Parts: sequence; structure tokens; C-alpha cells
Amino acid sequence: MPLLLNCDLGESAGVGVMGMDEAVMPHIDQANIACGFHAGDPMVMQLTLKLAGEHDVMIGAHPGYSDLAGFGRRSIQHSPEEIVALMHYQISALDGMAKTQGLEMQYVKPHGALYNDMMVDADVRRAVMNSIAAFSRPVKLMLLATPWADAHRAEAEQLGIELWFEAFADRCYDDDGTLLSRAKPGAVHGREKMLHQAGQLKNEGAVTTVSGHRLMIDADTLCVHGDNTEGVQAIQDIRALIDE
Amino acid sequence: MPLLLNCDLGESAGVGVMGMDEAVMPHIDQANIACGFHAGDPMVMQLTLKLAGEHDVMIGAHPGYSDLAGFGRRSIQHSPEEIVALMHYQISALDGMAKTQGLEMQYVKPHGALYNDMMVDADVRRAVMNSIAAFSRPVKLMLLATPWADAHRAEAEQLGIELWFEAFADRCYDDDGTLLSRAKPGAVHGREKMLHQAGQLKNEGAVTTVSGHRLMIDADTLCVHGDNTEGVQAIQDIRALIDE
Amino acid sequence: MPLLLNCDLGESAGVGVMGMDEAVMPHIDQANIACGFHAGDPMVMQLTLKLAGEHDVMIGAHPGYSDLAGFGRRSIQHSPEEIVALMHYQISALDGMAKTQGLEMQYVKPHGALYNDMMVDADVRRAVMNSIAAFSRPVKLMLLATPWADAHRAEAEQLGIELWFEAFADRCYDDDGTLLSRAKPGAVHGREKMLHQAGQLKNEGAVTTVSGHRLMIDADTLCVHGDNTEGVQAIQDIRALIDE
Amino acid sequence: MPLLLNCDLGESAGVGVMGMDEAVMPHIDQANIACGFHAGDPMVMQLTLKLAGEHDVMIGAHPGYSDLAGFGRRSIQHSPEEIVALMHYQISALDGMAKTQGLEMQYVKPHGALYNDMMVDADVRRAVMNSIAAFSRPVKLMLLATPWADAHRAEAEQLGIELWFEAFADRCYDDDGTLLSRAKPGAVHGREKMLHQAGQLKNEGAVTTVSGHRLMIDADTLCVHGDNTEGVQAIQDIRALIDE
Repeated sequence: MPLLLNCDLGESAGVGVMGMDEAVMPHIDQANIACGFHAGDPMVMQLTLKLAGEHDVMIGAHPGYSDLAGFGRRSIQHSPEEIVALMHYQISALDGMAKTQGLEMQYVKPHGALYNDMMVDADVRRAVMNSIAAFSRPVKLMLLATPWADAHRAEAEQLGIELWFEAFADRCYDDDGTLLSRAKPGAVHGREKMLHQAGQLKNEGAVTTVSGHRLMIDADTLCVHGDNTEGVQAIQDIRALIDE
Repeated sequence: MPLLLNCDLGESAGVGVMGMDEAVMPHIDQANIACGFHAGDPMVMQLTLKLAGEHDVMIGAHPGYSDLAGFGRRSIQHSPEEIVALMHYQISALDGMAKTQGLEMQYVKPHGALYNDMMVDADVRRAVMNSIAAFSRPVKLMLLATPWADAHRAEAEQLGIELWFEAFADRCYDDDGTLLSRAKPGAVHGREKMLHQAGQLKNEGAVTTVSGHRLMIDADTLCVHGDNTEGVQAIQDIRALIDE
Repeated sequence: MPLLLNCDLGESAGVGVMGMDEAVMPHIDQANIACGFHAGDPMVMQLTLKLAGEHDVMIGAHPGYSDLAGFGRRSIQHSPEEIVALMHYQISALDGMAKTQGLEMQYVKPHGALYNDMMVDADVRRAVMNSIAAFSRPVKLMLLATPWADAHRAEAEQLGIELWFEAFADRCYDDDGTLLSRAKPGAVHGREKMLHQAGQLKNEGAVTTVSGHRLMIDADTLCVHGDNTEGVQAIQDIRALIDE
Repeated sequence: MPLLLNCDLGESAGVGVMGMDEAVMPHIDQANIACGFHAGDPMVMQLTLKLAGEHDVMIGAHPGYSDLAGFGRRSIQHSPEEIVALMHYQISALDGMAKTQGLEMQYVKPHGALYNDMMVDADVRRAVMNSIAAFSRPVKLMLLATPWADAHRAEAEQLGIELWFEAFADRCYDDDGTLLSRAKPGAVHGREKMLHQAGQLKNEGAVTTVSGHRLMIDADTLCVHGDNTEGVQAIQDIRALIDE
């Protein structure tokens, strides 16, 4: 199965401004659409759904902590029940809005601090998985492809849910299989390294870590970024490489 | 058909505090549940839905303008498309959360400034009705019973949607059929007048206006208030009167 | 020096609704005024400041985490720099608004989760104290009177700031000197026990803990609650007891 | 007196991300700093103030309606008292934060829908001017240079406040002296026209309107935009032209 491209979209602030979303949408397979808690608003969601529908792009909910000012990048302490509630709220909002356009939301990718907390805190991950399992119909969960993917897959199977694993072409991997912290030099690849890593992920299911080791990364989808014109160009380059 | 009692619930701020909702729920027929924009949060919605389910109370979405600080009491300028979007977002969120509990959202009652705008501005009302008509499944719309009810019913029929009309037992009606402004003396009835007006609405389909005229008000449901212990007592009194 | 009474005020949501604040203000010495992050809005702050001025009540800022939906009761992860920033923002807002009315903000009492984090997490407490020390003019910090008061006083002296210690008449104290968790039976006193404890705090500088031990609590001020009519009555009772 | 350059800054969402602000600050004279209602958060404000201080850039408050999701671009209905309150809150917050850094806020420029409402609605403008007049110390108000500048100056003089008038180099002016609506073709100038208009404003105090008429525009300051790399380049070009 070919690598898919997923991108966070619908993150504009204010009255339907769409940012680079229109330039990005033709080149990706999966749109992670912000649900209004860390970014986006109902009008932006409506327009982003429409755009995804026009380009036959798979629709995913991109729920986050309730923190517009902080763009969802700050952890907010929640009980497991609260995490289930905030997941269900946001997923339901996007799901219902998609239905009114005759579209279907197919997967969920948590955003920012919620995503990070899910990857490092088993309680948060269990709450997130429980929210997917308890949702009114089956949807997939997207999380980071790591050396612990088998354990995550086992957790998911117990709850009867399916996972999608994503990898990054533009981020350097640490030797332990996590992404190298953005605070460290070399954390974000330039164009050439990014394309090389995309090729590795596509052809070998592997990346070269910060210290030069080979790390197996079995990913279903690559996360790409469409914040600016350089990002849009990078998406087109990766698209071409994947389609070769 | 007997008069129903509807009440705004799930308006608590903060981590699942339920206010007087637990005292109110056993006595009402319809719960208008805040959807997080003017009040409530996902956890409060979750708990309010559960409580409504336990008491077999009909579930309604209570969407408002996005204004937690202002409790949805300030008009926010929106295009018709934005009103449709904010309605669909909030309705969908509650609808999806109800489904995960095996419950069904059956109607929508706009809140605060959105409700008032809907009653006085035909463009807003059309946008609200369009949002109900375009929702992925049929739900009813609740609005104020006024002398213009037939016109509102005609608007709704054109769009294929059904209405519920609500009246107030505790509010004095002006001679033109609107509610007397809260800024005016006598706008809010005490216990005795409130129960008298509830009896009038039940038995005669009428109220006595501020200047003593008889005004026909054909209501399906009475709006009651459960903010404090006096409110809860009033609900019980009205419940007893309706059930006589 | 006599015990003062402090109360959280200005927590209304929406367009200047004042709750019980008008009933409370005449009976207290210190008004902790919400600064719009967990409750209140600019108009409510304006009105609350005016009310405090009319009753010669000392004005304190009551800053919290940015979480209107959660009423500031959820911890939000912040760096020390961010805590300083959110403190300065909220304190400055209230301070400047007080000045435009010819009033003076004199102290700061953190709210909810920020208050709790400050009491149990030395890093948060240091950030809070640093924000007070770095503010453009001297203001006092209010925190909980505990067995660790001397240590807290030492921390404050190092930074050149002054503290006010508050105690609770209506909350049962655990044997370790903290407030008994609200989840436990007997955590909140009824009227009689509350007045007894207020008397103990006034006359002996002590309370009786949950298991019957005597605990010395050296408080400058008692925190009272004006959320409802019972609360207002309790405030009047405690006021009378203090003034005896 | 030479034309100044002002720019909206501190509009980043999330944990101190600074956008292009660092690239923009060296080239401008006045920084309109978002105050957290439509954009920015306390940490972003703190960092933007610091950056302005490092480059000796004049500091202005940039208050807006409370609408993070809508970026302050939607009108929210407010009474004059509420407008005064929201102005005082935001101005005070920035003012106090500036003071803690030893800096001074010198002027106020309303943002987005609040700015537009101020220009077209005399009640809103009076409320805005009243808020400036009632502030605890003198600060200037920045508004759009239009054919009605004399009337606006007269309104300001009555209240004892001073104005700064701003013009736009990159926006086409309509024949009536307002900015041509962005919905119309030719509303936003490309590089060449923008530099030509900047030169006209500098040398002649005039612009050429959409239909080719000459319109006198007496501006103190030009509003420039630093959202992306093109914007930053345009600022440098205008800077060079002004400094010639």
C-alpha cells in the first residue's frame, strides 16, 4: 500500500480566511481538520470540509486541548473522562458538519499537546483510544510511528479500534525512535534531507537517525506542512516522489 | 396535547459542576443543553446528557453565539453562512455526544442574543431555519410563541421543518405580544402571578398583558428556570399545576 | 490586628450581571476581583471595582489560568516565564482599570488551579512570587495559611514582597494542615461548625482538625463565599462575630 | 515631520511563537501590539514588548473585540460603557506589562472590526475616544486619515485627546476617501503601485483614487504589514523610500 500524505488544515483564524489550504489540498490524501478548540472556527471548518470534498481528500478530525491563544500547544490537566468528553465533542462537531455536506469523517488525529501527551502518557493514550472505541461509529486513530508501534497496536486491538501510523520526512529522528526535539540543532531538515528521508520511508520503511543509525519506521502516512509557500512547494515535491 | 416544560441546562462553568441541574431534571420534559459556545463544556454536556437520559427527558441543543465571557447575551455580527456553520457545529457536537450514550437529540432552541436576533431579524431567522433544514436528519426548532406564529410556521413549512412554540409563565407580556423588557417594572412575575399565568396558558391558551388585555398565546411548551432554589421550587409548583 | 474578610467577586458571566456581589460587598474588607481569564469580563470588572470603591473595600486582583469554560479549575502547563506573563497581564488590567476610577489595587490572590499549584509546587510559587516582585509597584500576595507559612514568608522576604495569609471558616482542616479534600465527608462545615471555627481562628489562632487535633493557623484574613443567599447570610454572621 | 511606519505585531498564536515580528521590528517606528482579545497572549505580548524595546520602537496598544477564533474581524454589539471597559482592560494590560519592562505605551490603535466600527459609527468612535480621555494618563489614538479628519480632530479636541492619522500604501483608495473594499478588483496594490503611493503620501500628501482622481490624505504614519516574507520585503522597500 502506498504512503499517504496527511496535512493539518483549517487552522485559520477569522471569518473564513483559508491560508494556504487551497494550494495544499490538491496534493494530499488526508486532511486533518482543526475542530475549533486550538484553531479554526465553524465557518473555517465548513469551508475546509467543502475543499476536501472537492478534491476527494479523506477527512480526519484534528481535536486539541481548548486553547486558542496557545494553539493547543500547552498541556491542560484532564481526567480520562474529560479527555473522552473533549474528543467526543470535537469529533462529533466535525462528523456532523461533514454529514451535512454528504461527506464522511474517517479518522481522528489528536493535535499538539494532546498528541504529545498521548504518545508519552499511557493514561492519556488509553483515554484517547477509549473515546474512539466509544464513538457512535468506527473511525481510525492516527498516531506517531515509533518503535512501540506493536504495543500501541495491541492496545488498540483490545478496544477493537484501528490505527494509522504517521511519520515525518522533515524531522530528524533521535536514536530512541522519537522525533529529535525542535530545540536541538538539526531537528528540522532542509529540502534535500527531507526528500531523502521521504524516499527512505517510502522505499525502505526506515530513516537515518541523528547519530547515523538505521531505524525501521513502518508508516502508513507522511505528515506534511502547508503553512507557507515553501511548505506548499515541499508538499508538491514529496507528492511527486511518492507517485513515482 | 399537554403543555411541556423546557429548561436551559448544562450551563455550569468548570469541570463538571452541575449547579441545580440534578434538582431540576426530574420535573421537566425538555432539556435545552448548552453546547459550549456561551456556556458549558464537553464534560458538563456529557453529564447533562446522562442526567437527561436517566430521567427520560427529551434532549434539545441550545446553541449560542461564541461568547463565554458574555454568556451569549451579546449580538455578534455574522453572515447567514456563518450562522448556519455555528448552528451545525454546536448541534452536531451535542448530537454526536448524545449518540455515544444511546440518546437522541430531538430539537434545537437557540440561546440568548441568537434567540432574540432570530425573533426580530428575518435574515437571522432564515439562516437559523436553513441550518435546521440542511442538518443531516430532521430535528425541530423551538422559538417564542408570538402573534406572528402563523407567519413563522409558514416560513418553516416552506423549508420542511417543524416548530415548537414556547411561552413564559414568569414574564409579563407587552400588549404587542412580545415579552415586556426586563428593564421595565413588573417584567418578571412573582410566584403568585407566575402560577396564575401558567394556569392561563394551560387552560385558556392566553395571558393577560401588562395593560390588562387578553392575548392569545398558543404554546407547546413553557420555559422554566432552574438557577437557584427558588427557581427549582417554582418548577415543582408549575409541574404540579400542569399535571393536575 | 483584626481578622479581615476576603471574598471572590466579579465572577459573573455576561454583560454586567453582578450576582450576589451587591449583597456581599457591604460586609467584607477585601474583594478578590476576577480578571477575565477564568471568570468576569471587562464590564463586570468595571462594575465590581466601582462597587468596591463605594464600600471602601480593599481591591485585590484574582488572576487565574486562561480557562473560562473550566472556571480556572484545571491546571494548564506553563513555563515560569508564562506564569509571570499571565500574572502581569491580569494584574495590570485590573490595576489600570482601578486607576481610571481613582482606586488602587493593593494585593493579588491567585485563583483556583493556579492557587492550588502555587501551594503545592515550589516552581509555580516562585514564578508567582517573581511576578509580584517584578511588578511595576509593590503589591501584596495572598496565599493559604499553613504550617509552612514561615518558609513561605522567608521565600517572600528574599524577593522583597509581603504576604497575607488566609484561612477558611467553612472548611475542615486535615491533620497535616491542608484543607480536607472536598471529596471527603465533613470537608465543608455547616453553619454552626463554621461559626465555631471562625471564633477559634479569631480568638485562638487555631482550628480543630478532622481527627480532633488542635492546629495553629495564623491568618490575616478569612475567605468567605457569596455565591448564593445562604452564603451571604453566612458572611453577615461571620462579620458580626468578627466585629464583636 | 517625517512619515512614520506602524505595523500590527504580537499576533502569534501559541506559546511565544513570534512569526515575522523579529524581521519586521528593526524597520518600523510604531508597534501596534495585540492585547490578547483578538490575537496574542500574555507571553507573546511580553516578548513583543521586549523586542520593541530593543529596537526603540514606539509602543501602541492594539485592542480588539473579544474574538480569538474570528481574529477580531466580526462586529460584536456593545454598549458605549462596554466599549470603554474593553478598551481600558486591554490598554491597561499592555500598559502595565510595558511598565514592568521599563517601557511606556504611548498610543492606542483599535483593531479590525472595532477599528472599522469606530470609523463609520459615531457612537462607537465617541466611546473609543471617551475611553482614551478617561484613561489614567494621556495616550494618543490612531485612526484612519480620511476627508473627515478635521471633524475627527474636533471631536478629539473636545475631549482633550490627541490623534495620529494613518494611511495605507498598499490599498487603493475609493473616490469618497475610504479604502476600496477588498472584495473589489484592484483593492490591494502590487509592489510597484504600493511604492508609488508611498511616495505620493510622503511627498504630496495625496493619493490617486481608483478612478484616477487626486485625493489629499494628510497622514502621520503608514500602516505596513509583516505577515510573510513578501510583506517584510515591502516594509524594507518603504522604509528606504521614506528615509531617502
